[in-house]
Amino acid sequence: MIKRVNHIAIAVPDLELAAQTWRNLGVTVSEPQTLPEHGVRVVFLEFGNVKLELLEAYGEGSPIGKFMQKNPSGGMHHVCFDVDDIGATSAKLQDAGIRVLGGGQPKIGAHGNPVLFAHPSDLFGVLTEFEEPHSPES
Amino acid sequence: MIKRVNHIAIAVPDLELAAQTWRNLGVTVSEPQTLPEHGVRVVFLEFGNVKLELLEAYGEGSPIGKFMQKNPSGGMHHVCFDVDDIGATSAKLQDAGIRVLGGGQPKIGAHGNPVLFAHPSDLFGVLTEFEEPHSPES
Repeated sequence: MIKRVNHIAIAVPDLELAAQTWRNLGVTVSEPQTLPEHGVRVVFLEFGNVKLELLEAYGEGSPIGKFMQKNPSGGMHHVCFDVDDIGATSAKLQDAGIRVLGGGQPKIGAHGNPVLFAHPSDLFGVLTEFEEPHSPES
Repeated sequence: MIKRVNHIAIAVPDLELAAQTWRNLGVTVSEPQTLPEHGVRVVFLEFGNVKLELLEAYGEGSPIGKFMQKNPSGGMHHVCFDVDDIGATSAKLQDAGIRVLGGGQPKIGAHGNPVLFAHPSDLFGVLTEFEEPHSPES
């Protein structure tokens, strides 16, 4: 079951500049984190109901490198939903004719939780991530 | 002050197909509304914390017509934030060097509230809407 929007990710060419721009507008912005194994640097913009994640490409072969070549000023990159069961979500997507990247197997995402991505061509041009958050009990 | 994310808007080529796809994934989808004066047909996907708005171009000169020409499969079109004072937001954006479309004057948006749009080139490629919701008292 899809429960809520976890975050909206925006790719930017200059993370510090983007973070400062949002701070200038009064928004609380986290400190930058570098995630070398995911090929990005990130900050989060905190709003009352949902997070915006700003992504900057990091290192060779960043997963957002191609996007930045096409969109050098940046742009909306993906939307991520929380789900209660990542395996069931993979099956449900495929039953609905929506391709799951990486052969349908979840992998560990940038926040340490199991994630999968649906093919953007099967969801109206939107790269869509599904994430199973840690349960509070675990 | 920017308070929360009001909605994320996704432009789609076929509203009924997109609505059905999300229903197939178990998401609650509103009935379509046609907004001729805004040149769109819309449905909302309801999640616990934030709405996704699916937009389909309607009529001649739709404001999403050019976007659909560039992105015929659809894509993320804009993000909208709730603010407590649309006039103060316009001033704050312009003080921060961010251009406000339409000369900085709010207009009445698709949901009947005053809105303005910031120039996407000044916010990292993201078309960004600000909306002052009706206060519960009014």
